[in-house]
Amino acid sequence: MASYRLQKRQDEEGVFVVEGPKMAAEALASAAEVLYVCATPEWQAPDSLRGEYCEVSQAELERLSLMRAPQQVWMLVRREGCGKKGEGNGLVLALDRIQDPGNMGTIMRTADWYGVRRLVCSRDTVSCFNPKVVQASMGAVFRTEVEYVDLPQWLGGCGMPVFGATLGGEPLKPDAGLVTKEAPAVLLVGNEGRGISPGAMAAVTQPVTIPNLGGTAESLNAAVAAAILIDKLIG
Amino acid sequence: MASYRLQKRQDEEGVFVVEGPKMAAEALASAAEVLYVCATPEWQAPDSLRGEYCEVSQAELERLSLMRAPQQVWMLVRREGCGKKGEGNGLVLALDRIQDPGNMGTIMRTADWYGVRRLVCSRDTVSCFNPKVVQASMGAVFRTEVEYVDLPQWLGGCGMPVFGATLGGEPLKPDAGLVTKEAPAVLLVGNEGRGISPGAMAAVTQPVTIPNLGGTAESLNAAVAAAILIDKLIG
Repeated sequence: MASYRLQKRQDEEGVFVVEGPKMAAEALASAAEVLYVCATPEWQAPDSLRGEYCEVSQAELERLSLMRAPQQVWMLVRREGCGKKGEGNGLVLALDRIQDPGNMGTIMRTADWYGVRRLVCSRDTVSCFNPKVVQASMGAVFRTEVEYVDLPQWLGGCGMPVFGATLGGEPLKPDAGLVTKEAPAVLLVGNEGRGISPGAMAAVTQPVTIPNLGGTAESLNAAVAAAILIDKLIG
Repeated sequence: MASYRLQKRQDEEGVFVVEGPKMAAEALASAAEVLYVCATPEWQAPDSLRGEYCEVSQAELERLSLMRAPQQVWMLVRREGCGKKGEGNGLVLALDRIQDPGNMGTIMRTADWYGVRRLVCSRDTVSCFNPKVVQASMGAVFRTEVEYVDLPQWLGGCGMPVFGATLGGEPLKPDAGLVTKEAPAVLLVGNEGRGISPGAMAAVTQPVTIPNLGGTAESLNAAVAAAILIDKLIG
Protein backbone atom coordinates (compact mmCIF):
# COMPACT_ATOMS: atom_id res chain seq x y z
CA MET A 1 0.00 0.00 0.00
CA ALA A 2 2.83 2.39 0.82
CA SER A 3 3.77 2.38 -2.88
CA TYR A 4 0.63 4.48 -3.51
CA ARG A 5 2.60 7.38 -2.08
CA LEU A 6 4.00 7.54 -5.61
CA GLN A 7 1.83 9.67 -7.86
CA LYS A 8 2.93 7.47 -10.78
CA ARG A 9 1.41 4.35 -9.24
CA GLN A 10 -1.87 6.20 -8.63
CA ASP A 11 -1.89 7.47 -12.20
CA GLU A 12 -1.22 4.04 -13.68
CA GLU A 13 -3.97 2.37 -11.71
CA GLY A 14 -6.50 5.19 -12.08
CA VAL A 15 -6.93 5.68 -8.35
CA PHE A 16 -6.32 8.44 -5.81
CA VAL A 17 -5.71 8.81 -2.11
CA VAL A 18 -8.16 10.41 0.33
CA GLU A 19 -7.07 11.18 3.89
CA GLY A 20 -8.60 12.21 7.19
CA PRO A 21 -12.07 11.67 8.71
CA LYS A 22 -13.65 14.67 6.98
CA MET A 23 -12.63 13.74 3.45
CA ALA A 24 -13.27 10.03 4.12
CA ALA A 25 -16.84 10.87 5.12
CA GLU A 26 -17.25 12.89 1.90
CA ALA A 27 -16.00 9.92 -0.16
CA LEU A 28 -18.33 7.48 1.57
CA ALA A 29 -21.31 9.84 1.20
CA SER A 30 -20.66 10.01 -2.56
CA ALA A 31 -21.11 7.43 -5.30
CA ALA A 32 -17.32 6.98 -5.59
CA GLU A 33 -15.91 3.47 -5.68
CA VAL A 34 -13.91 3.09 -2.47
CA LEU A 35 -11.30 0.34 -2.91
CA TYR A 36 -9.31 0.18 0.32
CA VAL A 37 -9.74 1.76 3.74
CA CYS A 38 -6.91 1.71 6.29
CA ALA A 39 -7.77 3.25 9.64
CA THR A 40 -6.54 3.43 13.21
CA PRO A 41 -8.85 2.15 16.00
CA GLU A 42 -9.92 5.73 16.84
CA TRP A 43 -11.68 6.19 13.50
CA GLN A 44 -15.45 6.09 13.71
CA ALA A 45 -16.53 4.48 10.45
CA PRO A 46 -19.83 5.74 9.00
CA ASP A 47 -22.56 3.19 8.16
CA SER A 48 -21.78 3.72 4.49
CA LEU A 49 -18.34 2.12 4.95
CA ARG A 50 -17.39 -0.02 1.94
CA GLY A 51 -14.28 -1.36 0.21
CA GLU A 52 -11.64 -3.60 1.73
CA TYR A 53 -11.01 -2.57 5.33
CA CYS A 54 -7.95 -3.02 7.47
CA GLU A 55 -7.07 -1.63 10.87
CA VAL A 56 -3.58 -0.09 11.14
CA SER A 57 -1.41 1.41 13.85
CA GLN A 58 -0.51 5.11 13.92
CA ALA A 59 3.01 4.16 12.74
CA GLU A 60 1.59 2.21 9.79
CA LEU A 61 -0.73 5.10 8.92
CA GLU A 62 2.29 7.42 8.89
CA ARG A 63 4.04 5.15 6.41
CA LEU A 64 1.02 5.26 4.07
CA SER A 65 0.23 8.93 4.41
CA LEU A 66 1.34 11.89 2.32
CA MET A 67 0.43 14.31 5.10
CA ARG A 68 2.65 15.71 7.81
CA ALA A 69 0.14 14.86 10.51
CA PRO A 70 -1.92 11.88 9.27
CA GLN A 71 -5.36 11.58 10.83
CA GLN A 72 -7.06 8.28 11.54
CA VAL A 73 -7.92 7.15 8.01
CA TRP A 74 -6.38 6.61 4.56
CA MET A 75 -8.41 5.53 1.54
CA LEU A 76 -7.87 4.50 -2.03
CA VAL A 77 -10.67 5.59 -4.39
CA ARG A 78 -11.21 4.87 -8.10
CA ARG A 79 -10.98 7.98 -10.28
CA GLU A 80 -13.45 6.86 -12.92
CA GLY A 81 -17.00 7.87 -12.12
CA CYS A 82 -15.83 9.84 -9.09
CA GLY A 83 -17.30 13.25 -9.90
CA LYS A 84 -20.88 12.44 -10.76
CA LYS A 85 -22.58 14.28 -13.59
CA GLY A 86 -24.80 16.39 -11.40
CA GLU A 87 -27.48 18.76 -12.57
CA GLY A 88 -25.55 21.97 -13.06
CA ASN A 89 -26.71 25.55 -13.20
CA GLY A 90 -25.71 26.42 -16.77
CA LEU A 91 -22.22 27.67 -16.02
CA VAL A 92 -19.23 25.62 -17.20
CA LEU A 93 -15.84 26.56 -15.78
CA ALA A 94 -12.90 26.23 -18.18
CA LEU A 95 -9.38 26.26 -16.73
CA ASP A 96 -6.36 27.00 -18.90
CA ARG A 97 -3.06 25.81 -17.38
CA ILE A 98 -3.88 26.33 -13.68
CA GLN A 99 -0.72 25.06 -11.95
CA ASP A 100 -1.05 25.57 -8.21
CA PRO A 101 -2.83 22.68 -6.45
CA GLY A 102 -4.16 25.02 -3.74
CA ASN A 103 -5.74 27.26 -6.39
CA MET A 104 -7.22 24.28 -8.26
CA GLY A 105 -8.76 22.83 -5.10
CA THR A 106 -10.09 26.23 -4.02
CA ILE A 107 -11.64 26.80 -7.45
CA MET A 108 -13.37 23.39 -7.21
CA ARG A 109 -14.61 24.25 -3.71
CA THR A 110 -16.02 27.58 -4.92
CA ALA A 111 -17.66 25.93 -7.95
CA ASP A 112 -19.26 23.40 -5.60
CA TRP A 113 -20.63 26.22 -3.40
CA TYR A 114 -22.23 27.91 -6.42
CA GLY A 115 -23.55 24.68 -7.94
CA VAL A 116 -21.19 24.68 -10.93
CA ARG A 117 -20.85 20.96 -11.67
CA ARG A 118 -18.67 20.87 -14.78
CA LEU A 119 -15.01 21.84 -15.17
CA VAL A 120 -13.23 21.56 -18.51
CA CYS A 121 -9.44 21.87 -18.24
CA SER A 122 -6.48 22.12 -20.60
CA ARG A 123 -4.36 18.97 -20.48
CA ASP A 124 -1.56 20.83 -18.67
CA THR A 125 -3.80 21.95 -15.82
CA VAL A 126 -2.89 20.29 -12.49
CA SER A 127 -4.74 17.00 -11.92
CA CYS A 128 -7.91 17.21 -9.83
CA PHE A 129 -6.67 14.00 -8.14
CA ASN A 130 -3.42 15.57 -6.92
CA PRO A 131 -3.48 15.03 -3.11
CA LYS A 132 -3.24 18.77 -2.36
CA VAL A 133 -6.08 19.49 -4.78
CA VAL A 134 -8.24 16.80 -3.20
CA GLN A 135 -7.69 18.27 0.28
CA ALA A 136 -8.24 21.91 -0.77
CA SER A 137 -11.42 20.95 -2.68
CA MET A 138 -13.09 20.04 0.64
CA GLY A 139 -15.07 17.25 -0.99
CA ALA A 140 -15.87 19.02 -4.26
CA VAL A 141 -13.83 16.37 -6.10
CA PHE A 142 -16.74 13.97 -5.39
CA ARG A 143 -19.37 16.33 -6.78
CA THR A 144 -17.75 17.84 -9.86
CA GLU A 145 -17.19 16.40 -13.31
CA VAL A 146 -13.67 17.35 -14.41
CA GLU A 147 -12.49 16.73 -17.98
CA TYR A 148 -9.03 17.28 -19.47
CA VAL A 149 -9.23 18.19 -23.17
CA ASP A 150 -7.66 20.11 -26.04
CA LEU A 151 -9.07 23.34 -24.64
CA PRO A 152 -8.93 25.67 -27.70
CA GLN A 153 -10.68 22.98 -29.76
CA TRP A 154 -13.31 22.31 -27.09
CA LEU A 155 -14.03 26.02 -26.59
CA GLY A 156 -14.29 26.54 -30.35
CA GLY A 157 -16.96 23.86 -30.65
CA CYS A 158 -18.90 24.28 -27.41
CA GLY A 159 -21.63 26.48 -28.89
CA MET A 160 -21.87 28.70 -25.81
CA PRO A 161 -20.73 32.26 -25.11
CA VAL A 162 -17.24 32.20 -23.57
CA PHE A 163 -16.46 34.82 -20.89
CA GLY A 164 -12.66 35.10 -20.58
CA ALA A 165 -11.06 36.52 -17.42
CA THR A 166 -8.41 38.99 -18.56
CA LEU A 167 -6.85 42.26 -17.46
CA GLY A 168 -8.02 44.00 -20.63
CA GLY A 169 -11.73 43.16 -20.75
CA GLU A 170 -14.97 44.90 -19.81
CA PRO A 171 -16.20 44.93 -16.21
CA LEU A 172 -19.16 42.63 -15.63
CA LYS A 173 -22.11 44.67 -14.39
CA PRO A 174 -23.80 43.21 -11.32
CA ASP A 175 -26.67 41.38 -13.00
CA ALA A 176 -28.01 38.44 -11.04
CA GLY A 177 -28.79 35.39 -13.12
CA LEU A 178 -26.85 36.38 -16.23
CA VAL A 179 -26.13 32.69 -16.78
CA THR A 180 -28.91 30.12 -16.26
CA LYS A 181 -29.76 26.58 -17.34
CA GLU A 182 -31.66 28.09 -20.27
CA ALA A 183 -28.81 30.47 -21.13
CA PRO A 184 -25.64 28.46 -20.42
CA ALA A 185 -22.15 29.90 -20.78
CA VAL A 186 -18.49 29.21 -20.15
CA LEU A 187 -16.18 31.14 -17.82
CA LEU A 188 -12.53 30.73 -18.86
CA VAL A 189 -9.77 31.37 -16.30
CA GLY A 190 -6.07 31.27 -17.22
CA ASN A 191 -2.70 30.49 -15.70
CA GLU A 192 -1.59 32.21 -12.46
CA GLY A 193 1.23 34.20 -14.07
CA ARG A 194 0.59 34.12 -17.78
CA GLY A 195 -3.18 34.26 -18.07
CA ILE A 196 -5.15 32.70 -20.94
CA SER A 197 -3.09 31.17 -23.77
CA PRO A 198 -3.52 32.69 -27.27
CA GLY A 199 -5.20 29.51 -28.58
CA ALA A 200 -7.89 29.57 -25.91
CA MET A 201 -8.24 33.36 -26.09
CA ALA A 202 -9.27 33.04 -29.75
CA ALA A 203 -12.50 31.36 -28.60
CA VAL A 204 -13.42 34.07 -26.06
CA THR A 205 -16.57 35.91 -27.09
CA GLN A 206 -16.60 38.34 -24.14
CA PRO A 207 -13.37 39.36 -22.36
CA VAL A 208 -14.21 40.36 -18.80
CA THR A 209 -12.16 42.06 -16.13
CA ILE A 210 -12.39 42.92 -12.45
CA PRO A 211 -11.65 46.66 -12.21
CA ASN A 212 -8.35 47.45 -10.45
CA LEU A 213 -9.86 49.99 -8.06
CA GLY A 214 -6.72 50.30 -5.94
CA GLY A 215 -4.42 50.88 -8.89
CA THR A 216 -1.44 49.40 -7.02
CA ALA A 217 -1.72 45.59 -7.17
CA GLU A 218 -0.56 43.82 -10.31
CA SER A 219 -3.15 41.06 -10.30
CA LEU A 220 -5.55 38.99 -8.24
CA ASN A 221 -4.98 35.41 -7.14
CA ALA A 222 -6.47 33.09 -9.81
CA ALA A 223 -8.87 31.37 -7.39
CA VAL A 224 -10.05 34.75 -6.09
CA ALA A 225 -10.62 36.10 -9.61
CA ALA A 226 -12.56 32.96 -10.57
CA ALA A 227 -14.74 33.28 -7.46
CA ILE A 228 -15.62 36.94 -8.04
CA LEU A 229 -16.56 36.26 -11.67
CA ILE A 230 -18.59 33.12 -10.84
CA ASP A 231 -20.48 35.20 -8.30
CA LYS A 232 -21.19 37.92 -10.84
CA LEU A 233 -22.35 35.45 -13.49
CA ILE A 234 -24.68 33.32 -11.40
CA GLY A 235 -24.78 34.82 -7.87
CA MET B 1 22.47 37.02 9.11
CA ALA B 2 21.44 33.36 8.96
CA SER B 3 19.99 33.73 12.45
CA TYR B 4 17.18 35.80 10.90
CA ARG B 5 15.78 32.49 9.70
CA LEU B 6 14.38 32.35 13.22
CA GLN B 7 11.02 34.08 13.46
CA LYS B 8 11.84 34.94 17.08
CA ARG B 9 14.89 36.99 16.08
CA GLN B 10 12.79 38.89 13.50
CA ASP B 11 10.06 39.53 16.06
CA GLU B 12 12.52 40.79 18.69
CA GLU B 13 14.22 43.20 16.31
CA GLY B 14 11.03 44.36 14.59
CA VAL B 15 12.20 43.36 11.14
CA PHE B 16 11.09 40.94 8.43
CA VAL B 17 12.60 39.08 5.50
CA VAL B 18 11.75 39.79 1.86
CA GLU B 19 12.96 37.41 -0.86
CA GLY B 20 13.20 37.27 -4.65
CA PRO B 21 13.54 40.01 -7.30
CA LYS B 22 9.80 40.71 -7.53
CA MET B 23 9.26 41.31 -3.83
CA ALA B 24 12.60 43.12 -3.51
CA ALA B 25 11.49 45.54 -6.23
CA GLU B 26 8.21 46.12 -4.36
CA ALA B 27 10.12 46.87 -1.14
CA LEU B 28 12.47 49.31 -2.87
CA ALA B 29 9.57 51.04 -4.64
CA SER B 30 7.88 51.61 -1.28
CA ALA B 31 8.76 53.90 1.63
CA ALA B 32 9.89 50.91 3.72
CA GLU B 33 13.21 51.13 5.54
CA VAL B 34 15.46 48.54 3.89
CA LEU B 35 18.23 47.53 6.32
CA TYR B 36 20.28 44.85 4.56
CA VAL B 37 20.37 43.51 1.01
CA CYS B 38 22.23 40.29 0.18
CA ALA B 39 22.21 39.36 -3.50
CA THR B 40 23.97 37.09 -5.97
CA PRO B 41 25.79 38.72 -8.92
CA GLU B 42 22.84 37.93 -11.25
CA TRP B 43 20.50 40.31 -9.42
CA GLN B 44 19.83 43.55 -11.24
CA ALA B 45 19.49 46.14 -8.51
CA PRO B 46 16.97 48.94 -9.20
CA ASP B 47 18.15 52.58 -8.93
CA SER B 48 16.21 52.84 -5.68
CA LEU B 49 18.61 50.39 -4.00
CA ARG B 50 19.30 51.38 -0.39
CA GLY B 51 20.41 49.76 2.87
CA GLU B 52 23.64 47.92 3.53
CA TYR B 53 24.52 45.83 0.48
CA CYS B 54 26.60 42.68 0.21
CA GLU B 55 27.14 40.31 -2.66
CA VAL B 56 26.75 36.62 -1.77
CA SER B 57 27.20 33.29 -3.54
CA GLN B 58 24.24 31.02 -4.35
CA ALA B 59 25.36 28.75 -1.47
CA GLU B 60 25.37 31.68 0.95
CA LEU B 61 21.94 32.79 -0.28
CA GLU B 62 20.64 29.29 0.39
CA ARG B 63 21.90 29.48 3.97
CA LEU B 64 20.02 32.75 4.51
CA SER B 65 16.83 31.86 2.71
CA LEU B 66 13.60 30.39 4.03
CA MET B 67 12.54 29.31 0.53
CA ARG B 68 13.08 25.99 -1.16
CA ALA B 69 14.46 27.64 -4.29
CA PRO B 70 15.97 30.99 -3.24
CA GLN B 71 16.13 33.57 -6.00
CA GLN B 72 18.92 36.14 -6.34
CA VAL B 73 18.09 38.45 -3.44
CA TRP B 74 17.35 38.44 0.30
CA MET B 75 16.44 41.57 2.25
CA LEU B 76 15.85 42.65 5.80
CA VAL B 77 13.20 45.35 6.17
CA ARG B 78 12.00 47.29 9.24
CA ARG B 79 8.39 46.54 10.18
CA GLU B 80 7.60 49.94 11.63
CA GLY B 81 6.23 52.33 9.04
CA CYS B 82 6.20 49.60 6.41
CA GLY B 83 2.54 49.73 5.37
CA LYS B 84 2.02 53.42 4.72
CA LYS B 85 -1.24 55.05 5.71
CA GLY B 86 -2.59 55.40 2.20
CA GLU B 87 -5.76 57.15 1.20
CA GLY B 88 -8.32 54.36 1.48
CA ASN B 89 -11.74 53.97 -0.06
CA GLY B 90 -13.86 53.88 3.10
CA LEU B 91 -13.78 50.14 3.65
CA VAL B 92 -11.86 48.77 6.63
CA LEU B 93 -11.24 45.03 6.70
CA ALA B 94 -11.35 43.40 10.14
CA LEU B 95 -9.90 39.90 10.53
CA ASP B 96 -10.81 37.70 13.48
CA ARG B 97 -8.33 34.84 14.09
CA ILE B 98 -7.29 34.18 10.46
CA GLN B 99 -4.67 31.43 10.87
CA ASP B 100 -3.50 30.31 7.43
CA PRO B 101 -0.63 32.45 6.07
CA GLY B 102 -1.73 31.80 2.47
CA ASN B 103 -5.22 33.10 3.26
CA MET B 104 -3.84 36.15 5.08
CA GLY B 105 -1.54 37.05 2.19
CA THR B 106 -4.28 36.49 -0.38
CA ILE B 107 -6.69 38.69 1.60
CA MET B 108 -4.05 41.46 1.69
CA ARG B 109 -3.48 41.08 -2.06
CA THR B 110 -7.24 41.33 -2.75
CA ALA B 111 -7.57 44.37 -0.45
CA ASP B 112 -4.69 46.02 -2.34
CA TRP B 113 -6.45 45.36 -5.67
CA TYR B 114 -9.64 47.02 -4.42
CA GLY B 115 -7.87 49.93 -2.73
CA VAL B 116 -8.67 48.85 0.83
CA ARG B 117 -5.72 50.27 2.79
CA ARG B 118 -6.55 49.43 6.37
CA LEU B 119 -6.71 46.01 8.06
CA VAL B 120 -7.56 45.65 11.74
CA CYS B 121 -6.82 42.17 13.14
CA SER B 122 -7.42 40.30 16.37
CA ARG B 123 -4.17 39.69 18.24
CA ASP B 124 -4.29 35.96 17.42
CA THR B 125 -4.49 36.54 13.66
CA VAL B 126 -1.33 35.38 11.83
CA SER B 127 1.34 38.10 11.56
CA CYS B 128 1.37 40.07 8.31
CA PHE B 129 5.19 39.74 8.46
CA ASN B 130 5.13 35.93 8.44
CA PRO B 131 7.31 34.99 5.41
CA LYS B 132 4.49 33.06 3.70
CA VAL B 133 2.11 35.97 4.21
CA VAL B 134 4.64 38.41 2.76
CA GLN B 135 5.09 36.25 -0.36
CA ALA B 136 1.34 35.61 -0.87
CA SER B 137 0.56 39.32 -0.43
CA MET B 138 2.46 40.07 -3.65
CA GLY B 139 3.66 43.41 -2.32
CA ALA B 140 0.46 44.42 -0.53
CA VAL B 141 2.40 44.33 2.77
CA PHE B 142 4.10 47.55 1.61
CA ARG B 143 0.81 49.31 0.83
CA THR B 144 -1.48 48.29 3.67
CA GLU B 145 -1.68 49.49 7.25
CA VAL B 146 -2.17 46.43 9.46
CA GLU B 147 -3.00 46.79 13.17
CA TYR B 148 -3.34 44.07 15.81
CA VAL B 149 -5.84 45.04 18.49
CA ASP B 150 -8.43 43.84 21.00
CA LEU B 151 -10.91 43.31 18.17
CA PRO B 152 -14.27 43.23 20.04
CA GLN B 153 -13.30 46.46 21.82
CA TRP B 154 -12.13 48.14 18.61
CA LEU B 155 -15.26 47.11 16.70
CA GLY B 156 -17.48 48.32 19.54
CA GLY B 157 -15.91 51.77 19.43
CA CYS B 158 -15.26 52.25 15.71
CA GLY B 159 -18.47 54.17 15.02
CA MET B 160 -19.04 52.53 11.63
CA PRO B 161 -21.52 49.91 10.44
CA VAL B 162 -19.95 46.44 10.77
CA PHE B 163 -20.80 43.87 8.07
CA GLY B 164 -20.02 40.39 9.44
CA ALA B 165 -19.44 37.43 7.09
CA THR B 166 -21.46 34.55 8.47
CA LEU B 167 -23.41 31.53 7.23
CA GLY B 168 -26.63 32.84 8.77
CA GLY B 169 -26.81 36.41 7.45
CA GLU B 170 -28.63 38.19 4.66
CA PRO B 171 -27.31 38.10 1.08
CA LEU B 172 -25.76 41.39 -0.03
CA LYS B 173 -27.63 42.72 -3.04
CA PRO B 174 -25.37 43.81 -5.90
CA ASP B 175 -25.23 47.52 -5.23
CA ALA B 176 -22.13 49.25 -6.52
CA GLY B 177 -20.65 51.82 -4.19
CA LEU B 178 -22.45 50.71 -1.04
CA VAL B 179 -19.36 51.74 0.92
CA THR B 180 -17.57 54.99 0.04
CA LYS B 181 -15.20 57.48 1.67
CA GLU B 182 -18.27 59.44 2.73
CA ALA B 183 -20.05 56.31 4.01
CA PRO B 184 -17.26 54.16 5.50
CA ALA B 185 -17.85 50.70 6.93
CA VAL B 186 -16.11 47.63 8.30
CA LEU B 187 -16.18 44.13 6.80
CA LEU B 188 -15.44 41.49 9.45
CA VAL B 189 -14.18 38.05 8.37
CA GLY B 190 -13.66 35.20 10.84
CA ASN B 191 -11.51 32.13 11.36
CA GLU B 192 -11.26 29.46 8.64
CA GLY B 193 -13.05 26.76 10.60
CA ARG B 194 -14.80 28.52 13.45
CA GLY B 195 -15.95 31.80 11.92
CA ILE B 196 -16.36 35.01 13.91
CA SER B 197 -15.86 34.76 17.69
CA PRO B 198 -18.84 35.63 19.93
CA GLY B 199 -17.10 38.75 21.27
CA ALA B 200 -16.56 40.21 17.80
CA MET B 201 -19.98 39.05 16.58
CA ALA B 202 -21.62 41.21 19.26
CA ALA B 203 -20.39 44.29 17.37
CA VAL B 204 -21.80 43.19 13.98
CA THR B 205 -24.58 45.49 12.83
CA GLN B 206 -25.35 43.61 9.58
CA PRO B 207 -24.66 39.87 9.26
CA VAL B 208 -24.10 39.05 5.58
CA THR B 209 -23.86 35.77 3.76
CA ILE B 210 -22.99 34.44 0.32
CA PRO B 211 -25.92 32.24 -0.73
CA ASN B 212 -25.03 28.52 -0.95
CA LEU B 213 -26.49 28.05 -4.42
CA GLY B 214 -25.06 24.54 -4.87
CA GLY B 215 -26.36 23.28 -1.55
CA THR B 216 -23.55 20.73 -1.28
CA ALA B 217 -20.41 22.53 -0.08
CA GLU B 218 -20.03 23.24 3.63
CA SER B 219 -18.25 26.56 3.32
CA LEU B 220 -16.10 28.81 1.16
CA ASN B 221 -12.38 29.41 1.65
CA ALA B 222 -11.96 32.47 3.92
CA ALA B 223 -9.94 34.46 1.36
CA VAL B 224 -12.52 33.70 -1.33
CA ALA B 225 -15.43 34.76 0.90
CA ALA B 226 -13.61 37.98 1.83
CA ALA B 227 -12.99 38.75 -1.85
CA ILE B 228 -16.60 38.21 -2.93
CA LEU B 229 -17.88 40.46 -0.13
CA ILE B 230 -15.28 43.19 -0.74
CA ASP B 231 -16.35 43.18 -4.39
CA LYS B 232 -20.01 43.51 -3.45
CA LEU B 233 -19.35 46.33 -0.97
CA ILE B 234 -17.12 48.54 -3.09
CA GLY B 235 -16.83 46.88 -6.56
